[in-house]
Amino acid sequence: MADGKKTPKQILAAFKETGARVETKARTKLKKAADLSLYYTPGVGVVSEHLAQHPEETPAYSVKKNSVAVISDGSAVLGLGNIGPYGALPVMEGKALIFKEFAGIDAWPIVLNTQDPDEIVRTVLAIAPGWGGINLEDIAAPQCFEIERRINDALPIPVMHDDQHGTAIVVLAGLINAAKLVKKPLKSLRVVVSGAGAAGHGVAMLLAAAGITDIVALDRKGAIHLGRTDLPPHKKELAVINTHKREGALEDVMQDADVFIGLSGKGLLHQDHIRSMAPRSIVFAMANPIPEIMPDEANEAGAYVIATGRSDFPNQINNALVFPGVFRGALDRGVRRITEPMKLKAARALAALVESPTAKKIVPDMFDARVVPTIAKAIR
Amino acid sequence: MADGKKTPKQILAAFKETGARVETKARTKLKKAADLSLYYTPGVGVVSEHLAQHPEETPAYSVKKNSVAVISDGSAVLGLGNIGPYGALPVMEGKALIFKEFAGIDAWPIVLNTQDPDEIVRTVLAIAPGWGGINLEDIAAPQCFEIERRINDALPIPVMHDDQHGTAIVVLAGLINAAKLVKKPLKSLRVVVSGAGAAGHGVAMLLAAAGITDIVALDRKGAIHLGRTDLPPHKKELAVINTHKREGALEDVMQDADVFIGLSGKGLLHQDHIRSMAPRSIVFAMANPIPEIMPDEANEAGAYVIATGRSDFPNQINNALVFPGVFRGALDRGVRRITEPMKLKAARALAALVESPTAKKIVPDMFDARVVPTIAKAIR
Repeated sequence: MADGKKTPKQILAAFKETGARVETKARTKLKKAADLSLYYTPGVGVVSEHLAQHPEETPAYSVKKNSVAVISDGSAVLGLGNIGPYGALPVMEGKALIFKEFAGIDAWPIVLNTQDPDEIVRTVLAIAPGWGGINLEDIAAPQCFEIERRINDALPIPVMHDDQHGTAIVVLAGLINAAKLVKKPLKSLRVVVSGAGAAGHGVAMLLAAAGITDIVALDRKGAIHLGRTDLPPHKKELAVINTHKREGALEDVMQDADVFIGLSGKGLLHQDHIRSMAPRSIVFAMANPIPEIMPDEANEAGAYVIATGRSDFPNQINNALVFPGVFRGALDRGVRRITEPMKLKAARALAALVESPTAKKIVPDMFDARVVPTIAKAIR
Repeated sequence: MADGKKTPKQILAAFKETGARVETKARTKLKKAADLSLYYTPGVGVVSEHLAQHPEETPAYSVKKNSVAVISDGSAVLGLGNIGPYGALPVMEGKALIFKEFAGIDAWPIVLNTQDPDEIVRTVLAIAPGWGGINLEDIAAPQCFEIERRINDALPIPVMHDDQHGTAIVVLAGLINAAKLVKKPLKSLRVVVSGAGAAGHGVAMLLAAAGITDIVALDRKGAIHLGRTDLPPHKKELAVINTHKREGALEDVMQDADVFIGLSGKGLLHQDHIRSMAPRSIVFAMANPIPEIMPDEANEAGAYVIATGRSDFPNQINNALVFPGVFRGALDRGVRRITEPMKLKAARALAALVESPTAKKIVPDMFDARVVPTIAKAIR
């Protein structure tokens, strides 16, 4: 599992060398007694009394204005599964780094020693007052849906499970441009979504909201449709948007499909699946860190547009294109809830940044300075 | 409530201008795709898998090595009382700033939306895995004792309620030098501790551990002694160390006392109290932000050594002299619990930094660069 350039050993060594991806930094230097009497006792007492009486003014006087907690229970980390809080920490740190570097947001990783939904909700509500936003991350389905909803309902700050919504926004953006490339109307696309977890659900639901009517999602048992009797609530929602009532295994639904979107596991997609797709097929193999099929194999099998979630291949369909801008916009404008219209608007705006899409460029580069402000503008 | 130089309005304006005392900072820059594929996906997956299998190695690869959560429920903020999480936030931010500026520690303020002891314990245990240490702060007595004990027992990282132990260490350090100045043996001092909250308890117990035998602590009802039937467990401990069985109100126990240590409330101490003390009296009036008696009044009444908790008077007996070094030492040496011998050693080492104590200098300056390494060295 290298990055194409570094071996696992080299990666571990690189992480060990810096020790952490983020640190804190003083915004007000302490150089003399007067600095301490202003920013610590007794000066700080004035601000404490003021905020006790006017809690709504807290952002103007504190970290709350620009801070996001990146919170995970480690139950669904990348494509690695339930590897717990210590396994989750490097990913959350990586997100905190991206928040700062791309959007100037002060994010800190918080990994939880519990995977009980009630306990997660209680914990996040308990630590919420000092944060400007909550980025939930890598929490397994189906608990993630209830956890996000309950926290969102309870808190007056933006809360987003990025695996669902960040991923959905960037996939829709990529698909808008891929559809242009293959000269098929977006709404006419026949879409297969492999994976009915947090990301698969988020993506399928946003594609449906964008007007795509032929979407079939699959879990380990195959296509999700209303004929199945084993469906929890979030999969029933996926069955409802499977308006063409497609059934069967992956090889069945892949026949003549226009689009494959993989949010499942490494190596699930074979070249024969791609060969059975409609002409000018679109393959987003986004399992992390190892995709459903490697890009060169997909290419060999005839896929026309290929994307992964990784930064070492073209077309990185990664939510890192989205979450910094979403929270930048929400923090700057006091947006309390990321709604479906905001997500659709963000996806379209992101797609529009690529003026002339090609098979190797359907989404903007992560280092394109226009990305964060463009997404942020859509969050209002 | 000014800082002696700035009005409350000016203080609020200064805080509003910077918006926050601390921010985050990238330790690894993101400049090109290779940086992202190393520090985010897919590279980070290697580290996640490694730490899932070897959680004990987490500090070497993450923020855990150098991070401290500064956690408060806002139930006893400075001397302002129960002003809640928003009122507490500026103080916790100030501590995070001091942690960074004085000890290079990455601390972040976390204020809680609960004051229920069970819920506080559950919350801190739930968010603990990513932190190197936990600084509990401004939690009211008597809950603070049980909360600290339960968290300490459950976690393999250092946990300290600074109001108790940080304050105790710096008070003992100041008292060691004050005793030298007034030429009275430390162990012979007759001490009055006003306030039986977290700080009062912590101070009285550490002074007793240092060998002082004549200590009477007072709560709102007066002296705490074994004859009282209304004592919760932590006050029973204070009654036990009142070996001279002193009783009565503040004016009673202050007669012929050598030392007054105020950890109570503004304006509680009058000049007549000081006039009734033994010759060469020592007055530590440490209520924050407004002391039990202002230094000029105490001086006028004849106090020989005067200290407060504030940075705008001489002799700042403030736990900010202590907590950065305590956690620096604990993080550097993997110390899991701050023990009584460590606290005594830290206090003596801090006192020894003042080579020639005077009435205006019984503790080192906050900006004395020797303070943090000296305290850190005692934590082993």
